[in-house]
Amino acid sequence: MENKWKENLIKIKPYVAGEQSDDKDIIKLNANENPYPPSPMVQKIISEFDYRNLNKYPNSDSTILKNAIANRFKVNKNNVFVGNGSDDVIALSFMAFFNSDKPILYPDITYSFYPVWCSLINIPYKKIPVDENFEIVPQDYYIENGGIIIPNPNAPTSIGKGLDFVIDIVEHNQNSIVIIDEAYVDFGGQSAVELTKKYENLLITQTFSKSRSLAGIRIGYAIGSETLIQTLETVKNSYNSYVVDSLALEIGTASMNDEEYFINTINKVISTRDRVKSELRKIGFNVLDSQTNFLFAAHKDYRAKEIFEYLKTKKIFVRYFNIPKIDNYLRITIGTDEDMDKMISAIKEFLNK
Amino acid sequence: MENKWKENLIKIKPYVAGEQSDDKDIIKLNANENPYPPSPMVQKIISEFDYRNLNKYPNSDSTILKNAIANRFKVNKNNVFVGNGSDDVIALSFMAFFNSDKPILYPDITYSFYPVWCSLINIPYKKIPVDENFEIVPQDYYIENGGIIIPNPNAPTSIGKGLDFVIDIVEHNQNSIVIIDEAYVDFGGQSAVELTKKYENLLITQTFSKSRSLAGIRIGYAIGSETLIQTLETVKNSYNSYVVDSLALEIGTASMNDEEYFINTINKVISTRDRVKSELRKIGFNVLDSQTNFLFAAHKDYRAKEIFEYLKTKKIFVRYFNIPKIDNYLRITIGTDEDMDKMISAIKEFLNK
Repeated sequence: MENKWKENLIKIKPYVAGEQSDDKDIIKLNANENPYPPSPMVQKIISEFDYRNLNKYPNSDSTILKNAIANRFKVNKNNVFVGNGSDDVIALSFMAFFNSDKPILYPDITYSFYPVWCSLINIPYKKIPVDENFEIVPQDYYIENGGIIIPNPNAPTSIGKGLDFVIDIVEHNQNSIVIIDEAYVDFGGQSAVELTKKYENLLITQTFSKSRSLAGIRIGYAIGSETLIQTLETVKNSYNSYVVDSLALEIGTASMNDEEYFINTINKVISTRDRVKSELRKIGFNVLDSQTNFLFAAHKDYRAKEIFEYLKTKKIFVRYFNIPKIDNYLRITIGTDEDMDKMISAIKEFLNK
Repeated sequence: MENKWKENLIKIKPYVAGEQSDDKDIIKLNANENPYPPSPMVQKIISEFDYRNLNKYPNSDSTILKNAIANRFKVNKNNVFVGNGSDDVIALSFMAFFNSDKPILYPDITYSFYPVWCSLINIPYKKIPVDENFEIVPQDYYIENGGIIIPNPNAPTSIGKGLDFVIDIVEHNQNSIVIIDEAYVDFGGQSAVELTKKYENLLITQTFSKSRSLAGIRIGYAIGSETLIQTLETVKNSYNSYVVDSLALEIGTASMNDEEYFINTINKVISTRDRVKSELRKIGFNVLDSQTNFLFAAHKDYRAKEIFEYLKTKKIFVRYFNIPKIDNYLRITIGTDEDMDKMISAIKEFLNK
């Protein structure tokens, strides 16, 4: 009889995120964070914020932020949902849209949170293998399913596909809801937001954590038909009505309205990425063409795990996944030019040992 | 075949929160918000915050905030969990702890989010009636169950019970997990935090939204045995690893460390509450003795709904629930003395019409 209450505890394996450290000397290239600060407008908002109003709940409709997003993407406010980071938005979407006995589909090589949400919410799923070049094959998604989620660009492969790819998948899946997770789309990918005007069953999710340098404030959003957005609102209001706090609403709005800073920051990251890609190729890496703020790379002579461990001793954190098919690849976040040069030097040291 | 994807949408009835309005003239006594601002230390933290660090994800362990809470309650950091408001903490607790085929138990008159979470997460439940004085009867919870959640003090009744009440329930339920939701405990209730050292199956949840005047920043927390807290961490890390943002962590820590301001604010609310209770009784209300920051009151001659509607025309929002047993009661949040005087005057106007 003793400890019988423990039988009621959930049994689940959690997602493991990139390592964190308090050591300020660490060059952190393992969480796809942006090396540049957010828009200076964010600083302005914080310094002008009246703390006395924090006694009141935030606006539960997140109106100002939804309006800013709607304005930026030329959609209506009723086509926009916001949540506490895109992880929150996607988890709520799984609850809202994946209620079939048929399995949902996603690539076998992809964001590792998808299986975790499926197990948390009891959603059946089937992983669809990417091909030998890590490409997602649309024809493989022509089968019966209870929903589809695909990141575009995909992670950790960094590969982005065009609108024809999304159209192909949605056209062949008019009986289920298709989510395109565009966490990385701003770094050179092609967004499918405009397709949501044509396809009522298509949802696009994006985040402030990468291209807008706001990982520290949790804001993600979804754009889709009013039916999808209303259902998401219902689930949110059944889970946590005031999910985005007052300060985050103001900060997100300020960021979304500063298009010029946004474009400049992205261009800096893209330019560093393309330079680092060439340099890594010169020293024997196979580096996939990236439409993201990270590179996915394997060396012709050395195991990824060895390079990963060596970089760690040099206080440079990159990401290594001990997962079949990709266990010889490193996922390297694009940092500042200075940090990337240190990373390349450290790899050269390793190769010349 | 058309719109067959809609069959996969979730079917659920959401929680309906107290009305919000942009009208600054409204006296808002319908969401149990604190009328006083948060600690001035919160202002200091916000004004000194370095926005440039927002490009990094928040510490996913919420270490600084957990330490501040552990220190305040004289428990270990491993006994503390933090989330995005106590709604988030309780929803995650439902997922983590209520995994039995037997129904969970909670009072029929209570926080209306409980049935919503049950329906969202598919948890069977049984509502246990409160008695004719709105009291929760511990003996009614001696039956087989898959878990128990009870707010103490209860809402919207405002009734608080002593530690003997909690001990009674926990002692008779050693085979399930018992959650005591202490959202309102700081306004004169008795916290059962110390009991978590004895009972490994007891979880206490609290919030920054009421007594700490931080509804605008979403922070809630739970205190319990390491087993319960570790399971909550696992569920959190399966749902949204970075749930509390960097600024919220700092703000919560500053608030938790300012005990003096906390005590002063609570005492002001309690003193206003007790005065208003007497005044309402003088003009014909039955007002329950409250250990919360609100009053639960019914007038001997007039219907609650009529008073509610009249107050609304005077731009005073209180809460009315069209629910059997309590549909003649108003739930009135304690505001400033000035706001409460305006509310009483408006009620007197109504009575003298």
